[in-house]
Formats: sequence, structure tokens, C-alpha cells
Amino acid sequence: MFCQIIAGKIPAHKIYEDEQTLAFLDLAPVNPGHALVVPKTHADHLWELDDDQYSSLMFSAKKVANRIREILSPPRVGEAVEGFAVPHAHVHLMPIYKHLREEFNKPKPDLSADDLAAMAAKLKF
Amino acid sequence: MFCQIIAGKIPAHKIYEDEQTLAFLDLAPVNPGHALVVPKTHADHLWELDDDQYSSLMFSAKKVANRIREILSPPRVGEAVEGFAVPHAHVHLMPIYKHLREEFNKPKPDLSADDLAAMAAKLKF
Repeated sequence: MFCQIIAGKIPAHKIYEDEQTLAFLDLAPVNPGHALVVPKTHADHLWELDDDQYSSLMFSAKKVANRIREILSPPRVGEAVEGFAVPHAHVHLMPIYKHLREEFNKPKPDLSADDLAAMAAKLKF
Repeated sequence: MFCQIIAGKIPAHKIYEDEQTLAFLDLAPVNPGHALVVPKTHADHLWELDDDQYSSLMFSAKKVANRIREILSPPRVGEAVEGFAVPHAHVHLMPIYKHLREEFNKPKPDLSADDLAAMAAKLKF
């Protein structure tokens, strides 16, 4: 699915793109502003990326995290990688207001496509 | 507290060290093998590190994650950054067997100091 987003075959609320990486909003965010950063090259998991791809991905994550901090001013921008749900390496960046455990346990905000589009417009570089 | 570990004033189950970073076992692991990677320079949060420190930290995280994969062979090595508990930038690396949400919700394994020392000896570079 991420490969289809990268290829432009599935629309996504993109906020950042460069030669090697892409960032877009998570459709089921933990909090509004929750973004995913992915490498354009397919890899099953983060730790399998070569050093160049890994570095690009991590620096895009840093840019997007600092963008979320600048625009939304949450107390923290949390990061998470797990990789069970989608077999394409991706980094979650989430504005967080309490511990990740609590954030993961609370109900997800109910955002419409319009809400997501408005958030993407705010965060877009 | 991490600054005191870095300065050698508090003991820790170290598994990796280089000029800019240090990795050691979490004393309250989500699963056995759960490690923390920290920059030796104090920064409140990951996103405030300069690019050089950030890159060093992320490449140490990659080394440690792949070491955990090699030695413990978990289905995934998850990564998490939140930064509410300790005001020193740090990256969690955890062998995970299910989604982070479930991992965070289950009781933590009860490991003795000897268990941690044995794990550190296994993971040490």
C-alpha cells in the first residue's frame, strides 16, 4: 500500500517529499498531526535499509518532527517503529501529550477527510 | 541520571559505546534485551540534537537494533521515543513479539540484576 502511495496510485495527505523519502498523514492518527515517513525504496523493515537510505529517512523524520513542533507545539513529538501492520519500513511521528502507552490506549480522534486535508495543508513544507 | 551513567558515576549494563553515544539495558524492560541508546552530550529531546549528534545516535541505534536481531531473533525490533520520563534524549530499542500497544500493556518481565548482566554479556559488542 505504501508503494502505491509512493507511485501516486493511491492518494495521500502528503506533507513532505524529497528524492528518497515521503511523509504523509496517518489515516488513523493517535492525535491530529500524526505522520508517517517512508523510504521510497521498498524495504520490509527499518533495520534492513542501507546506511544511505536509513540516513535519508531519519533526517526526513527529524525535519517532519520539528515541523510538527513548530506548527502544533505539542509537549513532545513521539516516534515509534514497529512494523507488524504494514510490510514497508515506516516511522511514526506523533504529537503526544502523555506517555505513548496512554496515547496508544485512548480512543483515536475521529477525523474526516476534510480534517486531514486541513492538517496536511498546515504541516506541508 | 543518564548523564551520571555516561560519566560512569552510576553503573549500567552497557552493551555499546563510541565517542558520541552509549547504549545500555533498560532496568524495567518491556522484554528481555530492551536497550536505550543515548547521546553523550546532554539534550532534552531527540529533535534538538544537531545533525551530527543526531546521525551518530541514529546509526548507533541501527547497530544495536541489528545486534538484538542477530542475537535474540525476535520477529521485530521496535523503536520508541517519547521523552516524558527522563529529560535526556534517548531511543528505546525493544525486541517485540506483538504490537507496541500490547507490549506496553502487558506486565513487565521480572528480571534480576543477574539476568540483566547475563543479557548485557550476550548483547555486548
